[in-house]
Amino acid sequence: MRTVCLLFACLPGCGSISPADDPPFLGFGEAQAAGQRALEARFDAQIKADNLRDWMKRLAARPHHLGSPYDRENAGFIAAQFKSWGFETRIEEFQVLFPTPRTRLLEMTAPASFTASLAEPALKEDATSGQADEQLPVYNAYSCDGDVSGELVYVNHGIPKDYEELERRGIDVKGKIVLARYYGSWRGIKPKVAAEHGAIGCIIYSDPHEDGFFQGDVYPKGPYRSGRGAQRGSVMDMPLYPGDPLTPGVGATADAKRLPIKDAPTVTRIPVLPISHDDALPLLQALGGPVVPEPWRGSLPIPYHFGPGPTRVRLKLEFDWKMVPLYNIIARMAGSERPDQWVLRGNHHDAWVNGAADPVSGMVAVMEEARALGELAKAGWRPRRTIVYCAWDGEEEGLIGSTEWAELHADELKRHAVAYINSDTNGRGFLHASGSHSLERLVNQAARDVTDPQKKISVAERLRALRLTRGTPEEQRDARERAELRIEALGSGSDYTVFLDHLGIASLDLGFNGENGGGSYHSIYDSFDHYARFGDPGFAYGVALVQIAGRVVLRLADADTLPFEFTASSETIAGYGREIAKLVNDLREETEKRNRLLKEGRYEAAADPRQDFVAPKPQPSVPALDFARFEKAVVALGKSAQENDEARRALEKSGKAMTPEAGKSLDGLLLKSERALTGADGLPRRPWYKHQIYAPGFYTGYGVKTLPGIREAVEERNWEEAVKQAVNVAEALELYAAGIAQATTLLKAAARD
Amino acid sequence: MRTVCLLFACLPGCGSISPADDPPFLGFGEAQAAGQRALEARFDAQIKADNLRDWMKRLAARPHHLGSPYDRENAGFIAAQFKSWGFETRIEEFQVLFPTPRTRLLEMTAPASFTASLAEPALKEDATSGQADEQLPVYNAYSCDGDVSGELVYVNHGIPKDYEELERRGIDVKGKIVLARYYGSWRGIKPKVAAEHGAIGCIIYSDPHEDGFFQGDVYPKGPYRSGRGAQRGSVMDMPLYPGDPLTPGVGATADAKRLPIKDAPTVTRIPVLPISHDDALPLLQALGGPVVPEPWRGSLPIPYHFGPGPTRVRLKLEFDWKMVPLYNIIARMAGSERPDQWVLRGNHHDAWVNGAADPVSGMVAVMEEARALGELAKAGWRPRRTIVYCAWDGEEEGLIGSTEWAELHADELKRHAVAYINSDTNGRGFLHASGSHSLERLVNQAARDVTDPQKKISVAERLRALRLTRGTPEEQRDARERAELRIEALGSGSDYTVFLDHLGIASLDLGFNGENGGGSYHSIYDSFDHYARFGDPGFAYGVALVQIAGRVVLRLADADTLPFEFTASSETIAGYGREIAKLVNDLREETEKRNRLLKEGRYEAAADPRQDFVAPKPQPSVPALDFARFEKAVVALGKSAQENDEARRALEKSGKAMTPEAGKSLDGLLLKSERALTGADGLPRRPWYKHQIYAPGFYTGYGVKTLPGIREAVEERNWEEAVKQAVNVAEALELYAAGIAQATTLLKAAARD
Repeated sequence: MRTVCLLFACLPGCGSISPADDPPFLGFGEAQAAGQRALEARFDAQIKADNLRDWMKRLAARPHHLGSPYDRENAGFIAAQFKSWGFETRIEEFQVLFPTPRTRLLEMTAPASFTASLAEPALKEDATSGQADEQLPVYNAYSCDGDVSGELVYVNHGIPKDYEELERRGIDVKGKIVLARYYGSWRGIKPKVAAEHGAIGCIIYSDPHEDGFFQGDVYPKGPYRSGRGAQRGSVMDMPLYPGDPLTPGVGATADAKRLPIKDAPTVTRIPVLPISHDDALPLLQALGGPVVPEPWRGSLPIPYHFGPGPTRVRLKLEFDWKMVPLYNIIARMAGSERPDQWVLRGNHHDAWVNGAADPVSGMVAVMEEARALGELAKAGWRPRRTIVYCAWDGEEEGLIGSTEWAELHADELKRHAVAYINSDTNGRGFLHASGSHSLERLVNQAARDVTDPQKKISVAERLRALRLTRGTPEEQRDARERAELRIEALGSGSDYTVFLDHLGIASLDLGFNGENGGGSYHSIYDSFDHYARFGDPGFAYGVALVQIAGRVVLRLADADTLPFEFTASSETIAGYGREIAKLVNDLREETEKRNRLLKEGRYEAAADPRQDFVAPKPQPSVPALDFARFEKAVVALGKSAQENDEARRALEKSGKAMTPEAGKSLDGLLLKSERALTGADGLPRRPWYKHQIYAPGFYTGYGVKTLPGIREAVEERNWEEAVKQAVNVAEALELYAAGIAQATTLLKAAARD
Repeated sequence: MRTVCLLFACLPGCGSISPADDPPFLGFGEAQAAGQRALEARFDAQIKADNLRDWMKRLAARPHHLGSPYDRENAGFIAAQFKSWGFETRIEEFQVLFPTPRTRLLEMTAPASFTASLAEPALKEDATSGQADEQLPVYNAYSCDGDVSGELVYVNHGIPKDYEELERRGIDVKGKIVLARYYGSWRGIKPKVAAEHGAIGCIIYSDPHEDGFFQGDVYPKGPYRSGRGAQRGSVMDMPLYPGDPLTPGVGATADAKRLPIKDAPTVTRIPVLPISHDDALPLLQALGGPVVPEPWRGSLPIPYHFGPGPTRVRLKLEFDWKMVPLYNIIARMAGSERPDQWVLRGNHHDAWVNGAADPVSGMVAVMEEARALGELAKAGWRPRRTIVYCAWDGEEEGLIGSTEWAELHADELKRHAVAYINSDTNGRGFLHASGSHSLERLVNQAARDVTDPQKKISVAERLRALRLTRGTPEEQRDARERAELRIEALGSGSDYTVFLDHLGIASLDLGFNGENGGGSYHSIYDSFDHYARFGDPGFAYGVALVQIAGRVVLRLADADTLPFEFTASSETIAGYGREIAKLVNDLREETEKRNRLLKEGRYEAAADPRQDFVAPKPQPSVPALDFARFEKAVVALGKSAQENDEARRALEKSGKAMTPEAGKSLDGLLLKSERALTGADGLPRRPWYKHQIYAPGFYTGYGVKTLPGIREAVEERNWEEAVKQAVNVAEALELYAAGIAQATTLLKAAARD
C-alpha cells in the first residue's frame, strides 16, 4: 500500500521543528513575555516548602477515605484554605456507591489448614499505623459478594497471555480460584480476565519481587513492602467506564437515575481479595502441578507451581453496599479578559488510608500553587482566563469525584475548558509529564525554566540526562535528536481520565518520581513518617512541582494566544500509525511462522513428553488491511500542523498583533481543538471512552493504548473492526486538521492585515 | 575498509551448500555406504540399556575422586572391561599435584557470630549420600592456603564487568573478602578477577536462583540443589593452561621436571571456598551498603546489598599439597588398512564424589559403544583405521588425565590423530554437539540416522524443532535456512581441550541434555538415585548417545576418505569475522556515545545524589583497524572450501575411485587440516593455547571465545595486539586453505585419471 510507504518514509523525528528559534513563552508576544517572566519570579518567591510539610501532616494525620469522617474534615479544611486565598470556593457533593467489607475470610482447607491474617500490623516507627479504628481493612472495592471454595491455580499477573500459557499446559481455571500477583496490569484486569475464563474467585497478592524485599530494605528499615503489607485498591471495571457504577455517563447527584446494584456492569463478576505475601506463601508453597516458567516466578523462597491444587481455599466476602457522600472542592478565580475560557487544575484529596504520598504529596503542591496565585492576586494580578482548582474525592474507588463532576458539568466544560492539568503522588526524582501532545511544547518550555533542586540544572535537562543515559534505544535517540522531550500518552489511573477520554479536553499529568521508590502504595504505611524519610525529604520536589505546574497554569491563563502547538501531535500520531502498521506486519509474520511450525509438528516435536503440552491453535492469516483513509489523514494532518506553525511564526516575525476579536476566535478554535479527536460513538464496547487517540487498554487497565480502536481490534484479530475503526480515527483527524487549518487562516489574515 | 564490506556482503548461510544432493555417508562410496548402513544396524542391535544402568550402579557406588581407593578400583574395572571386549588396553599412570583440605573455616565475626557448616547432609532417600568417610569435603581445589579476615563485599558473578559496577559506586575490594555467586562464568575466573582487584579472599556460593528452589523442587523432592547443597570444583587457572599445575606442556610422568608448588601459576593467589546458600544467607543478610542492581539479585528472600561490611568474615584454609597417582585407561583396536590414523574417543571416569551424572552417565555410554564394537570385531569386522578409547582420570581437578597424556604423546598424536570425540555428562533431552566445524556435516548425518527415544523422529529433527520453536532469532533462521544444524564452537570444560586447543586435533563433544535439569552438580547428591529419577530414567538417552557417537566413530574409522568438509568451517569463520567487525563498530559507537555523555555531564546529571556515584572514565576513540589480510584470507578460504566441495562431488559423480596411494595422501591432508589452525606461539599471555579459531575465554573460563586472539584484544581495547593477532589468524587460515587446495588437487586428479 503506497500510503503505508509514505508513513514509513517519514523518519522518527522528521515532523518535529527545532524550537530553537521559537519564543520561550509560546503564545506570548515579546513584550508580554517579559511581564510573564517577572510574574513567574514573583510566583516562585511565594512558595514555602514548610506549607507542604504542615498540610501533609494535617491531611494525612488520620485515615481519610471516601465516606470517612476525616475525609469530610479534610474537604472542609481544603475548602477553607482556598477561600482564604481569595478563590470563589464551593464543595460539590455527590452520592455514590461505596461497598466496605463486612466479612473477609480466606482459608486454605487442603492440604493443610491456614487462615490468612488479612491485617497489616502497627509499627512503633510509624506514628499513624496504629489507627486501626479508622483504617479501611485490606480489600478490593467493588468486588462482588461471594462464598466460594475450590482448588487454587497460580496465574502469574492474570492477564490474557498468562491464560494462553496455562492453555499450553492443559490447565483450565474453570470452577477454580485463581491466585494472581500484583503488577503486570492494573489490578481490576485480574478478576475480569479470571471471570472470563470461568474462575469462581480471585486472590491478588503482593509478591516481594515487585515492591518487597527483592527491591530493597523493607519498612521500617527501608521503604519497601514488608511481608504483611498489602495493597488495597479498586477493581471496578474502569476500562468500561469510571466513576459511580450506578450512574454511567451522568453526575451522581442525589436525584440521579441509578442502575440497580445487581445490574452495575463495573462491579466484578467474582469475589476478589488482596493479600500480603506472608498470607500467600502457605498457599503457594502447597501448590502442585508443573513448575511455572521463569517470567512467572516471583521472589518468595519456593519453587512456584501452577497447581491446580492440592491447595484448596475458601474465599468468603460480604460487603456493606452503602451510599456515601462525596466531596469535591471547586475553587475558581475568574478571568479578567476571557472569563469563559477555563483552565482546570486538580488533584484528589481522598486516600485509601492516611495517603501521605497518594495523594497528599500532590495535593499539598496544588494547594501551595493556589495559595501563591492568591498572593499574586492580592497584590493586584488577575488572570486573563478563569482558573479553576479542583480537589477531588473518591478517586481511589474509581476516579469517582472527577468523573461525576465532569459528567454533571459536561456541556459547559466542553464549551469552556481550555485544558485540565492533573497531579497525584509526587516524590523525589525526575519530571514525569504525560498528556495531550498539543501541550508538549508548553510543558517543555516550563520544564526548561524550573531548576532541579538536587542538581541545579533545569528539570528538563535532568530528564534528558536520564533518557540519554538509561533510556531505551528509542528514548535515547529521541532525547538526542528532538529539541522537545517527548511526553507520554495518558492511559488511566488518575483524575484526568474523564476530561481527556470522555470530554476531549486537552490534559496533562505532572509530577516527579523515580528516586522515591518504595512499597507503601495503598497500605497503612503510606504515612507522613514514611514519606518524610523516603518520598521527598525536605519537600524540594513538592516545590518543583508547584513551580512547573504553576507555570503551565499561569501561561495557559495569561497567554495572548492559547499555547497549543500541533506539529508534536501530528508527528506523534504518525508514529502511532507506524506502530500499528508494524503490529499488523509482525502479527502477519508471527501467524505464518506459527502456522508453519504447527503444520510441521515442530511444537510437538520439541515438547517434553514428561510435561503436559497442548500445541497452540493455527490462526487464520492476517489479511491486507485497508487503512488508506487513515494514512491520508495522518499525512494531511502533518501538513496542516506544519502550515499552522509557519503561519504563527510569520505573524510573530511580522510584529503585528491580532485584533481582540480575531484573537478570541483563534483561542476558541484552539480551546476546542482536542474535542475533534473524540468520536460520538466512542470505542467499541465502551462508548464512554470517546477519545480516538488515547485510552486505557481494555486488558491493561491503566496502561495506555494509543489509537485504541484500531490497535485493540488488531490485537484481538478483529480485522473488520480494525478497518472500521481506522475510518473513525481518520474522520477525527480530518476534523482536527480542519480546525487547525481554520486557525491558520486567522493567523495568515492577521499577518496580512 | 573495502574487505569489511566483502565480509558483510556475504549473507549468513550463503557459504553453505545444500547437502540434499550429498551422499548420506560423507566419505563413503555408494557401495561402501550400503555396507556401512548394515554395519551400523548390527552395531545398534548390540546396545543394551541395562549395561549402562549396571555399570553406573557399579562405578558410582562409592566416591571415586582422583587419588581415592575407589578411583583406582574403577580404573581397574574399566580396563578389565575393555580388555574383555578385545581391546589392547593399558592403564597409563601419572603423578600429579592434588591438594585436599586439612582445615576449612569460614566464620562471620561481625555484626554477629556465625560459623558456616560447610557440610552436605546425608538423605535417607539417597543411598550413597551417607558415605562421609570417602567423600571429599566441599572445597575448591587449587585454592592456595590462607588465613584472612576482612569486610565482605558482594560481587555478583565476580566477573570483570561486575567490578566496573562496583567502581561506579566507589566500592573497592582491596583488602576485603569477596562473596561471589556461582554461574555467570566458570568458577575459577572469580578468585582470579578478585585477586586482580586486590581482594584477599573469595567465597563462592550457590544462589538458589541458578540451580536451587528458583528453578524447581529441591532434592529429594525434585532434582534441584537444596539449601545445604554446595558445589565443589577446581579453581586452577585453566584458561592459562590445564592439567597438572607443576608440569605445563609436558606429561606428568614420575620423572618429569616439575615447578615448585609456590611457582605454579595456575594455583590461585587468594584462598577460595565454595559454600551452600544456607551458609551464605547470614553473611548476605548482614551486609550493608547500597542495594545491588536488579541483575545482581539472586533468589534468597532478602534485599541484596553490596557491602562492604558490616559483615566481617574470617576464612582459613589449609591444604595437604600431596602428589597422587592418576590412572588413564587407553584401549586400542588397531586399524586394518590405515592403522596409523587414529580415531580417539574419550570420557573421564573420575568424579568429585559419586558422580553418577558427571561423568558416569557419559562414561557408561562410551563403554557400551566400545563393547558393541568389540562384538562386531568378534564377528569378524575390523576398522580400517585405529580406534582408541580413553577413560580419563583427574578431569575434575583440571582436565589433568587427558592433558598429561596428550602432552606426553603430543608428537605421535599430531602425526596420527584423525579426531578426538568426547563425551561427559549425559541426560534426557536434545543432542548437544559442539566442536570443529569440519566435522559438522559428519555429525549432522549421524544425527539424522539416530532416533530420539521419546519422539521417534531423528535426534537431528528434534533439535531442529527445539531451535525453530525456542531458539534465538538467529538460531531460528539458521534452523530454517541451513540444511545442516549448526554445531557450536568449543570453549573448555571437558577433556577435548588439550586435543583441540593445544594440539589442533579436530574435536567433537557429544551428549544429550535439556530435559535433565537439576542441581546435583559436584555435590554428594550426584548419585545413582538422583540420576535414575531425574537424569535419564531408563537410560534411553544413554543408548542414543551410544548410537550417535558410535556412528561418528565408525564412519571416521571406516570411511573411504576421512569425512571432513570445509564449507561449514569457512562459513562459520566468516561469521566470526563479521562478529568481530560488529564488535569493533559497536565499541567505537559506544565509546563515542559514552565520551559525549561524559563531556556533557549527563551521567552526573542523571545520578541520584543520595547514592555514591563515580562516572565512568572517558576512553580513547576506537581507531580504524587494519584487518585486511585476515579478511582476504577468509574470502580465500571460502573459495578453497567451495572448490574442494565441488571437486569431491565431481569425483563422486564420475564414479571413479582414487588409487589407494592417492586416497592415503588425501587422508593425510585431511587428518592434519585442523593442525593448520594452530599457531606456534599460541595466544597472547597463554602460549599453551595454540588454536587460532577456538579457545576458552581468558575471563569466561569455559565459555568459548572464537578468533580468541583478535576478539580478546578488541575487548581489552588493545588495538595493536588485535591487528597483530589478525595477521596470525590470517596466516593460519592461509595454511588451512592451502591444505584444502592440495586436497582439491588430489580430488581433481582422481576425477581426471
